[in-house]
Amino acid sequence: MPLFPLVPRAVTRPFRRRTKPGAAPGTVRVHPDSPKPVVHIIAYGPEQFEERDLENLDELPALLERFAVTWIDVSGLGDADIIRGLGEKFGLHPLALEDVVNVHQRAKVEEYDERLFIVARMVAIEERVETEQISMFLGKNFVLTFQERPGDCLEPVRARVRKARSGIRADGIDYLAYALIDAIVDGYFPVLEEFGGRVDALEDDVARRETEDVVARIHQLRSDLLVVRRSIWPHREAVNALLRDRHPLFSDRTRLYLRDCYDHTVQIIDVTENYRDMCSDLRDFHFSQLSIRQNEVMKVLTIIATIFIPLGFIAGVYGMNFDTDVSPWNMPELEWFYGYPFALALMAAVAGIMLIFFRRRGWLGGRRRREPD
Amino acid sequence: MPLFPLVPRAVTRPFRRRTKPGAAPGTVRVHPDSPKPVVHIIAYGPEQFEERDLENLDELPALLERFAVTWIDVSGLGDADIIRGLGEKFGLHPLALEDVVNVHQRAKVEEYDERLFIVARMVAIEERVETEQISMFLGKNFVLTFQERPGDCLEPVRARVRKARSGIRADGIDYLAYALIDAIVDGYFPVLEEFGGRVDALEDDVARRETEDVVARIHQLRSDLLVVRRSIWPHREAVNALLRDRHPLFSDRTRLYLRDCYDHTVQIIDVTENYRDMCSDLRDFHFSQLSIRQNEVMKVLTIIATIFIPLGFIAGVYGMNFDTDVSPWNMPELEWFYGYPFALALMAAVAGIMLIFFRRRGWLGGRRRREPD
Amino acid sequence: MPLFPLVPRAVTRPFRRRTKPGAAPGTVRVHPDSPKPVVHIIAYGPEQFEERDLENLDELPALLERFAVTWIDVSGLGDADIIRGLGEKFGLHPLALEDVVNVHQRAKVEEYDERLFIVARMVAIEERVETEQISMFLGKNFVLTFQERPGDCLEPVRARVRKARSGIRADGIDYLAYALIDAIVDGYFPVLEEFGGRVDALEDDVARRETEDVVARIHQLRSDLLVVRRSIWPHREAVNALLRDRHPLFSDRTRLYLRDCYDHTVQIIDVTENYRDMCSDLRDFHFSQLSIRQNEVMKVLTIIATIFIPLGFIAGVYGMNFDTDVSPWNMPELEWFYGYPFALALMAAVAGIMLIFFRRRGWLGGRRRREPD
Amino acid sequence: MPLFPLVPRAVTRPFRRRTKPGAAPGTVRVHPDSPKPVVHIIAYGPEQFEERDLENLDELPALLERFAVTWIDVSGLGDADIIRGLGEKFGLHPLALEDVVNVHQRAKVEEYDERLFIVARMVAIEERVETEQISMFLGKNFVLTFQERPGDCLEPVRARVRKARSGIRADGIDYLAYALIDAIVDGYFPVLEEFGGRVDALEDDVARRETEDVVARIHQLRSDLLVVRRSIWPHREAVNALLRDRHPLFSDRTRLYLRDCYDHTVQIIDVTENYRDMCSDLRDFHFSQLSIRQNEVMKVLTIIATIFIPLGFIAGVYGMNFDTDVSPWNMPELEWFYGYPFALALMAAVAGIMLIFFRRRGWLGGRRRREPD
Amino acid sequence: MPLFPLVPRAVTRPFRRRTKPGAAPGTVRVHPDSPKPVVHIIAYGPEQFEERDLENLDELPALLERFAVTWIDVSGLGDADIIRGLGEKFGLHPLALEDVVNVHQRAKVEEYDERLFIVARMVAIEERVETEQISMFLGKNFVLTFQERPGDCLEPVRARVRKARSGIRADGIDYLAYALIDAIVDGYFPVLEEFGGRVDALEDDVARRETEDVVARIHQLRSDLLVVRRSIWPHREAVNALLRDRHPLFSDRTRLYLRDCYDHTVQIIDVTENYRDMCSDLRDFHFSQLSIRQNEVMKVLTIIATIFIPLGFIAGVYGMNFDTDVSPWNMPELEWFYGYPFALALMAAVAGIMLIFFRRRGWLGGRRRREPD
Repeated sequence: MPLFPLVPRAVTRPFRRRTKPGAAPGTVRVHPDSPKPVVHIIAYGPEQFEERDLENLDELPALLERFAVTWIDVSGLGDADIIRGLGEKFGLHPLALEDVVNVHQRAKVEEYDERLFIVARMVAIEERVETEQISMFLGKNFVLTFQERPGDCLEPVRARVRKARSGIRADGIDYLAYALIDAIVDGYFPVLEEFGGRVDALEDDVARRETEDVVARIHQLRSDLLVVRRSIWPHREAVNALLRDRHPLFSDRTRLYLRDCYDHTVQIIDVTENYRDMCSDLRDFHFSQLSIRQNEVMKVLTIIATIFIPLGFIAGVYGMNFDTDVSPWNMPELEWFYGYPFALALMAAVAGIMLIFFRRRGWLGGRRRREPD
Repeated sequence: MPLFPLVPRAVTRPFRRRTKPGAAPGTVRVHPDSPKPVVHIIAYGPEQFEERDLENLDELPALLERFAVTWIDVSGLGDADIIRGLGEKFGLHPLALEDVVNVHQRAKVEEYDERLFIVARMVAIEERVETEQISMFLGKNFVLTFQERPGDCLEPVRARVRKARSGIRADGIDYLAYALIDAIVDGYFPVLEEFGGRVDALEDDVARRETEDVVARIHQLRSDLLVVRRSIWPHREAVNALLRDRHPLFSDRTRLYLRDCYDHTVQIIDVTENYRDMCSDLRDFHFSQLSIRQNEVMKVLTIIATIFIPLGFIAGVYGMNFDTDVSPWNMPELEWFYGYPFALALMAAVAGIMLIFFRRRGWLGGRRRREPD
Repeated sequence: MPLFPLVPRAVTRPFRRRTKPGAAPGTVRVHPDSPKPVVHIIAYGPEQFEERDLENLDELPALLERFAVTWIDVSGLGDADIIRGLGEKFGLHPLALEDVVNVHQRAKVEEYDERLFIVARMVAIEERVETEQISMFLGKNFVLTFQERPGDCLEPVRARVRKARSGIRADGIDYLAYALIDAIVDGYFPVLEEFGGRVDALEDDVARRETEDVVARIHQLRSDLLVVRRSIWPHREAVNALLRDRHPLFSDRTRLYLRDCYDHTVQIIDVTENYRDMCSDLRDFHFSQLSIRQNEVMKVLTIIATIFIPLGFIAGVYGMNFDTDVSPWNMPELEWFYGYPFALALMAAVAGIMLIFFRRRGWLGGRRRREPD
Repeated sequence: MPLFPLVPRAVTRPFRRRTKPGAAPGTVRVHPDSPKPVVHIIAYGPEQFEERDLENLDELPALLERFAVTWIDVSGLGDADIIRGLGEKFGLHPLALEDVVNVHQRAKVEEYDERLFIVARMVAIEERVETEQISMFLGKNFVLTFQERPGDCLEPVRARVRKARSGIRADGIDYLAYALIDAIVDGYFPVLEEFGGRVDALEDDVARRETEDVVARIHQLRSDLLVVRRSIWPHREAVNALLRDRHPLFSDRTRLYLRDCYDHTVQIIDVTENYRDMCSDLRDFHFSQLSIRQNEVMKVLTIIATIFIPLGFIAGVYGMNFDTDVSPWNMPELEWFYGYPFALALMAAVAGIMLIFFRRRGWLGGRRRREPD
Repeated sequence: MPLFPLVPRAVTRPFRRRTKPGAAPGTVRVHPDSPKPVVHIIAYGPEQFEERDLENLDELPALLERFAVTWIDVSGLGDADIIRGLGEKFGLHPLALEDVVNVHQRAKVEEYDERLFIVARMVAIEERVETEQISMFLGKNFVLTFQERPGDCLEPVRARVRKARSGIRADGIDYLAYALIDAIVDGYFPVLEEFGGRVDALEDDVARRETEDVVARIHQLRSDLLVVRRSIWPHREAVNALLRDRHPLFSDRTRLYLRDCYDHTVQIIDVTENYRDMCSDLRDFHFSQLSIRQNEVMKVLTIIATIFIPLGFIAGVYGMNFDTDVSPWNMPELEWFYGYPFALALMAAVAGIMLIFFRRRGWLGGRRRREPD
């Protein structure tokens, strides 16, 4: 049964990685399985560009000074020292850092003095849906992102920054932040497309009356849709908060783009609920088919049994061994001249009456309608 | 099985046409299947009128100057150059242009400087419901509309403009915009009427206990109603935004008409939910009928089987071949003078007891009530 | 099957009467089936009173001048000229007039300059629920009402006006408007009372295990309750709007009465939902009874069949015709001295074991509890 | 069937007592079954106390003058004159008086000039839940309460007032009003406790697999909980209105106590919904048990029938009477030396194959798991 | 059946401990089963620390004076005198004290003059979920907590205070209050983790088609999740009230931490609902499996019965004892040369036709699809 688990395990597991309850707030506890962090730097201005992995955090101040925008992208959360080190360098609040390593946060936007702290969730789909937390700190001239592991949906943004004459180079950190959020939110669309394909495939199977694992697959799909829905839902509120709170880091022009991004979150929620509704409908339809077919099975059994059981009884009666010699009362039919034809006729009559009864009940032929009685 | 698909394919497909995730915002990517655009012009003032297809976009500035109102109607989105060209000519924001070609937008109203950008969805019904996005840009003296393909529900508006003395000619672009939105929203009513007819037809079939494809048709209808509901729902908010935000392009007088239009959206939502509720009720009722009939089937089987199986057993006993000559204990009944009548009487007694039992349980005759026991 | 239709046809029909989509707003299109309008006048002041049918609309100005309050009541919407004529005489907005003839409006209150336009729905019950739209225009000294057809729930108001010393004569048009709205809303109570009776009757039938048409009747009742609920729901908002918006036509004193009326709408909604919940509960209970009884039926079948089928098999074995003369292995039991008693004892033993098995499973007697095993 | 009615009759009956629809507002129509009113007076000040039944309403003015607080408690609504008399004496609004006799009001608070009009519902439980309307008028120095019939949950308040040194005597009418409302709201707790006991009892029965009337009792409990929920729900809003609107009759100190009372209403709503959820869960669980057991029944039937029906068929074959003398093709098995053992072995083989089949399907023994196949 | 009770008894019991309805508000009535209170003191300032059990309440004033922060932790509510004594010493409002002993309060925050009164619920899980009320009074220099019984989730906070150089010592009572609330809220996470494990275990059992007690366990889990959800839900509002109302006792810095705590409550609610949804999905899936398997069982029965019942009938016919000597019409087949082979062939033909019928219906093999017919 390769279909299981029904419930994406990712959903029931995140809490095992949490900071211990009651610990001092702001504790950065690293999970042993987390990959070691790789710090990747993309720094640029209208005329400059530099991209490389950073080995030593001490190079950061120089970079920040030289470039208009520095994007420090940390993939992997397996080293508490690096995270705390970055926290100190950029003056990040311990509560925010704790949220970076407790990778089960809902999307949100929080202000800590001049820093803006944004949490979002990327989504990917293999067999099942996976989500990955990305935490983002915004300062005057830097964007600092933390991802759980290497690999993300932000490559198109990097490609745009690398292109010498792209508009993005002329813009500030707010546009970069928007581009990242937009890429994360847009990353939901291929997942939805995959879901759309699965809904179509499921529907084909339901239509062809495949019964093998349809229910399990519908349940899986619904669970995955639930994961996506719970993941995207708080993004709407978070993007809206960016739009509404008019944080000084974001220019009016970028806010216009964020409005577009907000529309996308609403659309994704909409499609997700649409798909969930369709899954429910498919499941209901599947069960209604099943129940209609069970009804058919019952009818066939009933028709066959109720016709032949009485006939069998008649045959049984004339199979009794009462001694016809002892008395004229003992089964005189056996010695009638037309005894056997009479018995057969009796059986035919019983079967005929039954058939008429069934026909009047509308049980013969699924398509016939019941006469009003 | 011509009833499938249960789920309107249009619902699961739109994302295949999207701009690639992470692309620079404002990218106008045309889908290869989109029909080539036809640009149709209707320009008028209180005393003037001109209508024709436009071959060359360069004629536009002259038209805009000569007429009080110019309606540029683009049918088909298959040529990115024309769309970008119009965008430049009218100073449209790239994000809005991107929304024009990504034809899966929810209805909305957005301001870009002095332009008002309105997205709406037209609805049509053949076998299944289809929706089509119409995007509208409003400027001081023009209305620019983009449709996915030729053919729409706006013909009555064109007819009114063509009539020399219609009131619409004396009004500005706000009234034309209202007339278009009103025609789009009113276009939902014939679809609802069609749905009303289908609900009635379904009900007749449920009442006549047709079981063949009732469930599939109810599911189809519910899916279509879902499409309509999700399509009209954001129109309410969009029209309300036009009413509430008092954009300078819209006069108070036109706003009065928009209020009427808002009422219509509320009414359409109301009716759609009404129909969905009725579909659910019909389905529930259908299944309750099915389950009541399955109950009947079971009862018939039980009555026949429980009466005749014991009788058959009795007949079987007297069909055994124990040798009556060997011992007086071996089936002496077979040689009784009234052995056979005795056996028949025994059978009748058993059947009678069974019938009394069933009658007391209220199983004989669906209409009889169970006596309190 | 006199119980059908399940769905009140009135619900799926109103759209056939609509103004054509895309027509110029404010078009008054009369439905051919509508009865011809009868214009009934009740005009009064503290000391005056006049009541009659009006043949000629030109008498109106004189009436309006002579009396403090004139109530023009139009029953029947079958003549567009009269409606348009009244519209002109009273300066009514074309959009409001369109709503008068498109008789599927939700209850609402709208201001058009100094006129107040109120739509309400009267409810009546014969076999099924029927609703009728009543449109009301309020001016400084007149109340103009349009009803779909003759016959309404406003007779008690007329009776109060006719009484020489009734308080209503001393009041203005606001109190008359309130009295009409109150009579319309109060008209829901007898319908609810009828529904209450039907719920009681249904419950009796469910309790007596009548199964014939209980489900159809519950569905009908639920559909009717849905009609009432959707009909009354917008009244609450409409009455609240009258209370809240403090329109100058309504005095503070009358507003106090409207608050009472608002309470009634809340109460009607409350009771309607109460009844719908009860209907659902009754249906669930009915099906749970059905399923419990089906369980019983199955148990009886299983008990009888599983006891007698093995017994029948034993009888069948000893009914085989193997030749006992050929071999001592061939059915020697047939020639045992106690062969027959042995066979009967074997059968009794099998039956006994089965009965013990059933008893331990708790299947014998619906009231016995299952022993823990 | 002593369990019926499922639906508390009190729910479907109140409308039969209503003022006729369309009657002039403020009509006091007394229901013939209402008990005659008894007017009970408790008047007190910090140092004074008087308690007695009042025969003559004319004594009231003197009382009101002599005491700081006078509580006039009217039990029974069977005399319109007394009610109207009190209305005139205390300057009560006719609409409020109409609400006093139409005893189906939802809890509410209304201001009429200087009078505060409060409606609440007391709840009691015998077999089923009963509610009783209590209407309260508050003036500067009096509290006037109307109850449907004698007997209430206010006795503890009376006891506190009677005690010479109780704090309540030093307080004003606002504290008395609070004490009454608090006693009414607290009166819901014993009912909830009773419900808690019933939920526990139901659960025991479901656990012990009692099936007799569990479903009916769960439905009853749910109906009763619905009555309580609909009864308490508006109290929350009413008490909140008292808190929020800062009516001059209520001191800040008393408002602090009302906040406590508000908490209680929230808590009662919470518990009621909790219990309803549990009832639903119990019902679902009960049906899941039922369906699992029906599954078991079906399996037993299937196992027995599918084993013995083929065996019976084999026995039947060898019970056929073909004449073995006529032809060597006619049932030669009957004359084989090992014919009978062969037949028995054949039967045993068939039964064995069936058992292996069932075992592989996991049908033997409810507790065995299905092997993956 | 060790799985019961389905419903955590704690849910239906709290009301038995309540103050009597109608009693004077602020009555402190102690429940006889409550453990005797132990008063534990932790007093500290930046440089000082003292921790011990307090025997005599009179030592309190001295403590309060000496230390910046004094945390008086009372475990056990079994002595009304001590509670009332503390109430007097700290000037607590009687209504708040009543809430302390009526341990069924929802989480809330209330202001009484300068005191802040906070109620929260701790959660713990053994077999089933248990909740415990903790009431907290905050004054300028003290935190007074009341717990129902010894043992809590606050030990980590105590450990942090005991550590000489912990940051908590430098902070005021607001940070201590935050730390307590945070520890209480964080205490929900291990419970959720336990639930996560149970959901996983349940899913494994559903996947392995264990049917024994899956349904009961799902119901238990859902009930427990309901308890947690109803318990945590009001915490969100309470923490939000602390954030929003800007009570002077709380510094802006601490409010930043509370925001983190608020996030946790939202997250816990989110996860709880996630788990409830999954439980529902598992139950649905379980029942769909059950119903699919019942369908299989029915099919096997039907196939076997409908094949062999007609065959048995044929055998029965040729087992009849009509006297072939009397007439050539009486069962001449018995004396045909190929009579027996003919009968067997007839049976084979009937069985073959049946099998073809079943195969066309797709009943043979659960995995085959139905051919379109």
